[in-house]
Amino acid sequence: MTSPSSKLNEKISRLSEEIITEKELEGRLKSGQKLRIKYGVDVTSPFLHLGHAVNLWLMRAFQEEGHKIVFLVGDFTTRIGDPTGRNEKRPKISEADIKRGAKEFIKQVSRILLTDKKVFEIRKNSEWYSKMKTEKLLELMSLVTNAQLIKRDMFQKRIKEGKDIFENELIYPILQGYDSIMLESDLTVIGSDQLFNEMMGRDLQQKFGQSPQVIITTKITPGIRGGEKQSKSLGNYIGLLDSAREKFGKIMSIPDDLIIQYFEVYSDTALVRIREIERGLQGKKINPKDAKMELAEAVVLKYHSADESKDAKNFFVETFQKKNLPQDATTVIVKKGEMIKDVLARSGLVSSKSEASRLIKAGAVEIDGAIVKDIGAKFERGGIMRAGKKRFVKIKIV
Amino acid sequence: MTSPSSKLNEKISRLSEEIITEKELEGRLKSGQKLRIKYGVDVTSPFLHLGHAVNLWLMRAFQEEGHKIVFLVGDFTTRIGDPTGRNEKRPKISEADIKRGAKEFIKQVSRILLTDKKVFEIRKNSEWYSKMKTEKLLELMSLVTNAQLIKRDMFQKRIKEGKDIFENELIYPILQGYDSIMLESDLTVIGSDQLFNEMMGRDLQQKFGQSPQVIITTKITPGIRGGEKQSKSLGNYIGLLDSAREKFGKIMSIPDDLIIQYFEVYSDTALVRIREIERGLQGKKINPKDAKMELAEAVVLKYHSADESKDAKNFFVETFQKKNLPQDATTVIVKKGEMIKDVLARSGLVSSKSEASRLIKAGAVEIDGAIVKDIGAKFERGGIMRAGKKRFVKIKIV
Repeated sequence: MTSPSSKLNEKISRLSEEIITEKELEGRLKSGQKLRIKYGVDVTSPFLHLGHAVNLWLMRAFQEEGHKIVFLVGDFTTRIGDPTGRNEKRPKISEADIKRGAKEFIKQVSRILLTDKKVFEIRKNSEWYSKMKTEKLLELMSLVTNAQLIKRDMFQKRIKEGKDIFENELIYPILQGYDSIMLESDLTVIGSDQLFNEMMGRDLQQKFGQSPQVIITTKITPGIRGGEKQSKSLGNYIGLLDSAREKFGKIMSIPDDLIIQYFEVYSDTALVRIREIERGLQGKKINPKDAKMELAEAVVLKYHSADESKDAKNFFVETFQKKNLPQDATTVIVKKGEMIKDVLARSGLVSSKSEASRLIKAGAVEIDGAIVKDIGAKFERGGIMRAGKKRFVKIKIV
Repeated sequence: MTSPSSKLNEKISRLSEEIITEKELEGRLKSGQKLRIKYGVDVTSPFLHLGHAVNLWLMRAFQEEGHKIVFLVGDFTTRIGDPTGRNEKRPKISEADIKRGAKEFIKQVSRILLTDKKVFEIRKNSEWYSKMKTEKLLELMSLVTNAQLIKRDMFQKRIKEGKDIFENELIYPILQGYDSIMLESDLTVIGSDQLFNEMMGRDLQQKFGQSPQVIITTKITPGIRGGEKQSKSLGNYIGLLDSAREKFGKIMSIPDDLIIQYFEVYSDTALVRIREIERGLQGKKINPKDAKMELAEAVVLKYHSADESKDAKNFFVETFQKKNLPQDATTVIVKKGEMIKDVLARSGLVSSKSEASRLIKAGAVEIDGAIVKDIGAKFERGGIMRAGKKRFVKIKIV
């Protein structure tokens, strides 16, 4: 009989929103059994930000106690597509795309998760679905009513908007649920948007005589401009693959009222220290900028070396805080999606588009401290654009 | 280029309720093409009555012009069950039951349909469904929306009644529709309760690049007591396998206002004669009993030899019309479902239950001229019950 460490317990309490059920989780952890943790992913957009990292860090804490992540590439289901957050049928995706996506995805998660075989297993749901006969799928469908499926909030939303729900989309939760049976999942750590589907997993597991998996939904924080949660399309994220400078700069840009929340969820800073900072901010004894600086350092250190973190901090201080930015830096109005090289040229920072391309290739163009690598790169968000050593403009996106 | 005979045209106009579309049917018949007529059946209740026979006679008329009936045993779909008219999930059915059912079904339909290979082909939908992969089913499901399926009237009824619709039931129409593609169906002749499913067939056929099948729904007449259409459970039917005497007796029992409708749908009596009878009845120049006698003869002759038909008529006249039935025949009140042998005993027709069983075994018990064959038989409807030669009671069902 082993009990979870206080470290795991602290992670659970800092990062989780809801546990279904707390009692079941407690029982399983106390039993000493090594849990199988289902981590199912749609690999078509292998792009992770700190929002996703919350789940990963919590899973990592489980791994450190010997529990195993079963990384499930939803290669079969991806080809149908969970309609989550989308209002249209998704285009069909090739197997090659899925393979590429899975590889990239694993590269990114391995920044956080342990990939030792003892605690990391890779599976694909085509293992069972590509062989599955129609009769078996119909049997699964016979366990679920239309009313059960249609009450999923995203379907209700579509109905209200008069938009179509195709039958293959409707039964997606059944497939995702059956995955839990095939993986003998004990636990899954998810965003609340996956709660419906994973509850279906619990339901089906019980119908197939398995103990239902525990579900932990994690905390969701607003993106770096406040408001909506991080997403690629909104450009309000801190990417897992962002450079240390980018991460640092982005954290420095968050609204002051997010500081404490970000500390709790994205840093490993001790809770006592976080409470201290919270009181300091309330009593105006700590400057928000200093608190953010401490936050940025703490977060960046989780992903980068001490040297890189230090460099990121120095870069920020030099460039922005010490106002190396000329007072008269022009503000350039840019349409979202406009090519960076075009803006370089028309803002006068460089003399021509070919000069712009040359500078980008030389790694001499940065936005908020992040080097622009692709000469075809487009603007997704505003910031400070630097070309060469001393030429700056402020970019405002409209 | 051949045109349909006037005989086929008359059958179509006498027996069909709706043609989708008339223009398409006309075009196909005029083209000289031999049509493939999908006749899909659920073989779990191989029991046919004259209501079913309407479809069969219409199909027979097509066969006589060289068109082919494709008799589709829905052996795969039967195991799911079309929820038609049922409010509960149906029990699973064994393959042996399906085989037995199919055999019995074909035996019954061969009383009407030609079974020459040129115009009769037997198929099973397990041919395609037992091999079909999950991926293919999902592809079919991606062509249909939930809203499309759920608007089926029987589903709407269930929703109103707060009853479950399981997902496998909901997609039944997709499977039935896909059958039309696999059979390359040109035409199907159905009861209106199958219209929704066969319209799905048209829809899917077009999505798969086929010309949509023509759908003919046939006329539905009230059962022999008027009101609801014939059904086994209501006991208001004339069975295809009923004896000539039973058929005769049952037709004689129909309400007068059904005479003309029954003539049109169930007999081959010429339309001019039917109009004559209609006028005769209206002008009280023809006695309804005589009209029914003519109807009964005409119908019985479609299924039995001239001798049998004559015997049936004589039996009816002797037993009922000439009032061999004693004037003081007791009326016995019987609960629907009560055992016939119990009623024989308690009505005093026989001295004991064992006497009742003996008489039934000897074929000496009749209800409305139909011999009771099963000693476990139960009452489904009222009539005249005879035991031995001269003992009668009137049975009234409550």
